[in-house]
Amino acid sequence: MIKESKKEVSLENLALVPQLTLDCVIFGFHDNALKVLLLKWKQTPYHSLPGGTVRQDESLDDAAKRILKERTGLDKIFLRQFHTFGSLQRYNLERIKTALGHLIQPELWYERAISVGYYALVDYEEVFPNPDDLSESCDWWELKEVPDLLFDHNEILEKALHALRLELSFQPIGLNLLPEKFTMPDMMRMYEAILGKKIDPRNFQKKILKSGIVNKLDQVKRGVAHKSPYLYSFDKEKYKEVLKEGGLFFT
Amino acid sequence: MIKESKKEVSLENLALVPQLTLDCVIFGFHDNALKVLLLKWKQTPYHSLPGGTVRQDESLDDAAKRILKERTGLDKIFLRQFHTFGSLQRYNLERIKTALGHLIQPELWYERAISVGYYALVDYEEVFPNPDDLSESCDWWELKEVPDLLFDHNEILEKALHALRLELSFQPIGLNLLPEKFTMPDMMRMYEAILGKKIDPRNFQKKILKSGIVNKLDQVKRGVAHKSPYLYSFDKEKYKEVLKEGGLFFT
Repeated sequence: MIKESKKEVSLENLALVPQLTLDCVIFGFHDNALKVLLLKWKQTPYHSLPGGTVRQDESLDDAAKRILKERTGLDKIFLRQFHTFGSLQRYNLERIKTALGHLIQPELWYERAISVGYYALVDYEEVFPNPDDLSESCDWWELKEVPDLLFDHNEILEKALHALRLELSFQPIGLNLLPEKFTMPDMMRMYEAILGKKIDPRNFQKKILKSGIVNKLDQVKRGVAHKSPYLYSFDKEKYKEVLKEGGLFFT
Repeated sequence: MIKESKKEVSLENLALVPQLTLDCVIFGFHDNALKVLLLKWKQTPYHSLPGGTVRQDESLDDAAKRILKERTGLDKIFLRQFHTFGSLQRYNLERIKTALGHLIQPELWYERAISVGYYALVDYEEVFPNPDDLSESCDWWELKEVPDLLFDHNEILEKALHALRLELSFQPIGLNLLPEKFTMPDMMRMYEAILGKKIDPRNFQKKILKSGIVNKLDQVKRGVAHKSPYLYSFDKEKYKEVLKEGGLFFT
């Protein structure tokens, strides 16, 4: 809380919080595929997460929303803070200056920046990313195909994925990702796609039913092989309650 | 990542990262009581969490260790980052200047500071806090008795407690908090003290045994009422494995 006494610099007069940046990891899910949103810098082969600087007159949460909107066009996305990246060697400054010199004046980069990470999970068929002036494109990438990103963005992505999977382990998910009526296998495949691993179907069904977040409908899904599976829908009241209170745990 | 172009201030030459602070929430557990470490500012009735500023030449993780050591004497504590506090009104600057004016020059406070929160859980009988020059005392407080703290430290404490409880839900805990040999009820009472609520004993025992982190010994605890309960010890290999991989979930 105490600042350096030797220098007489009124840092608060600057419009930006010095050396503080923010990066957004937007995961997109649809039809059992999990993807991530990356920007491609204009006239370069380089990609990175949508990020930016924090202003003096905005909270971190507000900065996250603004930056995401400015850089990708995405609006009204619920972002969660997950980690702040503050090691000394987050990026090779010379590499960045060379790679992006035609877009950003080299002297505008911080020698050191601390970046606050936010993530979100959206249905990628429902949102329409638009690249900003610095970017050539803004696209959904399969996780396995993500290239080497600028800065420490591969590490930030990795940590965000960990946070998303952890969230999935104790909070309900899927209200805006599954169709209004879905089968237990539909829901389980969503979990498997996000967790990146197989889960035990019997255990899964037991936990989900016990949590009360879904209601079994008096309908089955037709036109599928073997026995027609029952349809379910989310119990929105209970869903919100569990979201607030926690207490939905998967092994 | 881009800084303001209008001003020619070489922020990187300052020894501190401007407007960036760090606060440590140290939870202490012993004999079924959970406490938190607070500093009392000299010649004031005010308490706060041990905190400080981040230097340009240290990572956030290193800053956390240094600040904790400087302010409380605690060394070699495993600290986890849990949240960064970046709202606009984290504290009333005038109140702070008045409260601590005899200790810190009023112009040294930032109008706005962003604080990175770290927490740890230790056995409070094993560590020996020592207040620094700014503090009159450094004591363990029962959570229920924590007073109004300076800055937004009550909120930071609340969020750290939430992070600790969440951690407890998916990671093993207790290796340095329980005696070498302990009973299932001992272990369960530790969980209850930290979670602040009752848990179902049968479910608890089943989950713990299934996880493999404890070994049942061929010994019972003598001198307790009713049936002598079996003693257990941690399986350190398995404990470390589960700590690394995750996958221990409680409802």
